[in-house]
Amino acid sequence: MPRLDQELTRLLGERRMLTSPDALLAWECDGFTVHKSRPRAVVLPETTAEVQAVLRLLHAAAVPFVPRGAGTCLSGGPTAGGDAVVIDLARMRKVLHIAADDLYAVVQPGVVNLDLTQAVHHLGLHYAPDPSSQSVCTIGGNLAENSGGPHCFKYGMTQDHVLGATIVLPDGELAHLGSAAGPRHQGQLDLLSVFCGSEGTFGIATEIIVRLCRDQQGVRTLLAAFDSMTAACRTVSDIVAAGLVPAALEILDQATIRAVEASVYRAGYPADAAAVLLVELDGPHQVIEEEAAEVRTFFARNGALRSEEATDPYERKRLWKGRKGAFGAMGRLNTDLYVLDGVVPRTRLEEALAGIAAIGERHGVLLTNVFHAGDGNLHPNISYDGRDAAQTARTIAAGREILQLCVDLGGSISGEHGIGSEKLDHVRMMYGDHDLEVMAKVRAVFDPAGRCNPGKVLPQRGACAEVAKWPQMVAKVLDVEERR
Amino acid sequence: MPRLDQELTRLLGERRMLTSPDALLAWECDGFTVHKSRPRAVVLPETTAEVQAVLRLLHAAAVPFVPRGAGTCLSGGPTAGGDAVVIDLARMRKVLHIAADDLYAVVQPGVVNLDLTQAVHHLGLHYAPDPSSQSVCTIGGNLAENSGGPHCFKYGMTQDHVLGATIVLPDGELAHLGSAAGPRHQGQLDLLSVFCGSEGTFGIATEIIVRLCRDQQGVRTLLAAFDSMTAACRTVSDIVAAGLVPAALEILDQATIRAVEASVYRAGYPADAAAVLLVELDGPHQVIEEEAAEVRTFFARNGALRSEEATDPYERKRLWKGRKGAFGAMGRLNTDLYVLDGVVPRTRLEEALAGIAAIGERHGVLLTNVFHAGDGNLHPNISYDGRDAAQTARTIAAGREILQLCVDLGGSISGEHGIGSEKLDHVRMMYGDHDLEVMAKVRAVFDPAGRCNPGKVLPQRGACAEVAKWPQMVAKVLDVEERR
Repeated sequence: MPRLDQELTRLLGERRMLTSPDALLAWECDGFTVHKSRPRAVVLPETTAEVQAVLRLLHAAAVPFVPRGAGTCLSGGPTAGGDAVVIDLARMRKVLHIAADDLYAVVQPGVVNLDLTQAVHHLGLHYAPDPSSQSVCTIGGNLAENSGGPHCFKYGMTQDHVLGATIVLPDGELAHLGSAAGPRHQGQLDLLSVFCGSEGTFGIATEIIVRLCRDQQGVRTLLAAFDSMTAACRTVSDIVAAGLVPAALEILDQATIRAVEASVYRAGYPADAAAVLLVELDGPHQVIEEEAAEVRTFFARNGALRSEEATDPYERKRLWKGRKGAFGAMGRLNTDLYVLDGVVPRTRLEEALAGIAAIGERHGVLLTNVFHAGDGNLHPNISYDGRDAAQTARTIAAGREILQLCVDLGGSISGEHGIGSEKLDHVRMMYGDHDLEVMAKVRAVFDPAGRCNPGKVLPQRGACAEVAKWPQMVAKVLDVEERR
Repeated sequence: MPRLDQELTRLLGERRMLTSPDALLAWECDGFTVHKSRPRAVVLPETTAEVQAVLRLLHAAAVPFVPRGAGTCLSGGPTAGGDAVVIDLARMRKVLHIAADDLYAVVQPGVVNLDLTQAVHHLGLHYAPDPSSQSVCTIGGNLAENSGGPHCFKYGMTQDHVLGATIVLPDGELAHLGSAAGPRHQGQLDLLSVFCGSEGTFGIATEIIVRLCRDQQGVRTLLAAFDSMTAACRTVSDIVAAGLVPAALEILDQATIRAVEASVYRAGYPADAAAVLLVELDGPHQVIEEEAAEVRTFFARNGALRSEEATDPYERKRLWKGRKGAFGAMGRLNTDLYVLDGVVPRTRLEEALAGIAAIGERHGVLLTNVFHAGDGNLHPNISYDGRDAAQTARTIAAGREILQLCVDLGGSISGEHGIGSEKLDHVRMMYGDHDLEVMAKVRAVFDPAGRCNPGKVLPQRGACAEVAKWPQMVAKVLDVEERR
């Protein structure tokens, strides 16, 4: 056993330092299953001091590492190359402090998103960002990815809800960014915002100060089914143009509706509908009442086939069931699912969806669409059989074209899933060498040796050495990069 | 005439390249009049290309420069050392594009804050951040300082309203940060957030994409006078604890009320009141009605001496008149005014105010307080005679103690005015060498030669060479720094 492994075992014990191939299987990939790679080892620290001790050992041995939350990331962010050690933060799941009057909480990075909301529910509070994976994903992972969610249309992304963080830098040193007192209290360069969304390439946050929001007086969910995607998108435009700011504005397309209705996530959506639109309103009862009346007129104006409304939690949950279960339902369509994440200006949603359908047809892939319509954040999903190399290649090729389309329409290659390893090949659709060089330099301030989640986010040639041992797909991506 | 000056004159003409001592007088300082220094020259570019050409010439000649908006900054940010050239952006005042449907505008940096709101008023839109200087300060200056304002309690700071910027780097190269499509569209490291609030030390933003907000259905301003500061602060706590989020929560203390009532800004505030609290509610009419009723019960519970309410714009303006004119009114108290800017947790406001009063008494300085109570953002103001060296020294000493008190109470040395040259001496109350080193490295990514607003924000020993020629007060500040 190499000396580093011995030292890590001495530090954490055998149950928290894993090296056997069987044990490592669970850490081979995240939700982006195209890229798979077994790490050198997985360690499971429980305290800030342990994270520091681990990073000091790795630093001394010049071994790269990859921080990981629940592994629900969809862009390969926490997938580790052959020589890297995964720092799994799942055991750091304590809510350290709740300051109800001052509306914040201090949590360890492994706290599950929904668990935090449940921990403050009795105080009439909640944590606002709600990725679809909120029942398993962690606050630390959310911070790394600057995660979004359906309710971010009104409430903002993770960045808007993180006030501060204690981070362990790649050499084991501590740094404190931001403070519980919030944005007015920074008094200096805002390094917290650039840490947020750096996808685990700057260091490891071991204590995170998050904003808590007061629960609204009331919540109402409205659902409408339409006979065309155009009608659903126009309804969204009407709602936004009227100055309403719903908590969520979500659309499911026909293929998604059919998959959902054929699955255990059956929500009673009309199977003949071309699109289902979910609108969630929250606020004082009187305001919801007035806004719901407005939304109903937009449903009618755009020829909704059917609509439903719910205010009690049980009924609301039923209306959301299909949306929340959409990705699960797609398990029926094929063995693997590639969940894409692109953004277009809201005013170009219809155009984007038509283009995406055309790309899917051209490549002969099965496409479904679920999206945050208010933000123009699309999630085209390709169902495929990952054991079939040709099908996988067509899937990746179609995905690439779809993201290029988003950029061409004035949007971006990622709304909330990050770049990870998945989109290293796509970054240059948006950024030139000079932009990437500046970003690489900022990253190097935190991680000068390039050992913290190497080979992710930035397609820097120099920094790619560590991932040279990655499997074929990554090699292919790097290859494409090289040829440019 | 030195060759650089000749080249700048050739580029911009004599009317936009100023070097005569008389002409330079207006650029000797900003609103922090303690630090004064005449720059080498002032240039007034009108286009991005001209800014690039100017910076290329300065880069080639290795001459430092200082970007400047309206000069309303209160921390010496745009004050230039003897060798530096001021890049005044006041002539870049075009609103380049208004996208009403997509709720954004693209502006040049010299556009006056209030002018932007007036340019979109007919569309039912406005630009939310509203510093007290909004009728003269510029969007570019607001971006540099991450400016706040009374309405930032509900609507957030400048950072929350800037979507993107085209910046000219110190070597004359262009970079684009963010995009009109907003935070979901970044797809990479958020360099825009760290540029925002970098106080002109990273480069010059020449096109700024800002978010536009829809006007609210109604606005109501409530004013209450109290016989103690304690009662006013408790009312604020009650309002916040009840879950209300007023658009503004402002307090004026007795000394401020008296100065206002004796001045042309007379607003009819009761002269015997120990504190005046302004509460502004906005939103749908029905909600305002309900919230106003709640606020009234808090006024009564805390024994308000008198209260007033206004919904029509003229009457609302009258209630605000004293607050908006407070700094002007202080011109009656002495020749100079040192406007401090510190933050404490909202729950410790009373304690802070008592401590500030004690510091004022000990130093024998005349103190008034106007503050954003909802945010805990204090503005203690010291009226003094800048021609009297001893009085000035007592003012600076009292200011320093007040900021140390804010930090000791868990707050910060700046809520919205920045560090500039004023607080170089105070930064280490909050940050250690390691923190400052990291910040300096991030700054160096944008400005490797340290020629962009040198000697500001970060008390780095190495970077202070350029300000060695500054007048006595700065030298003193550096001196204090050196002795640590």
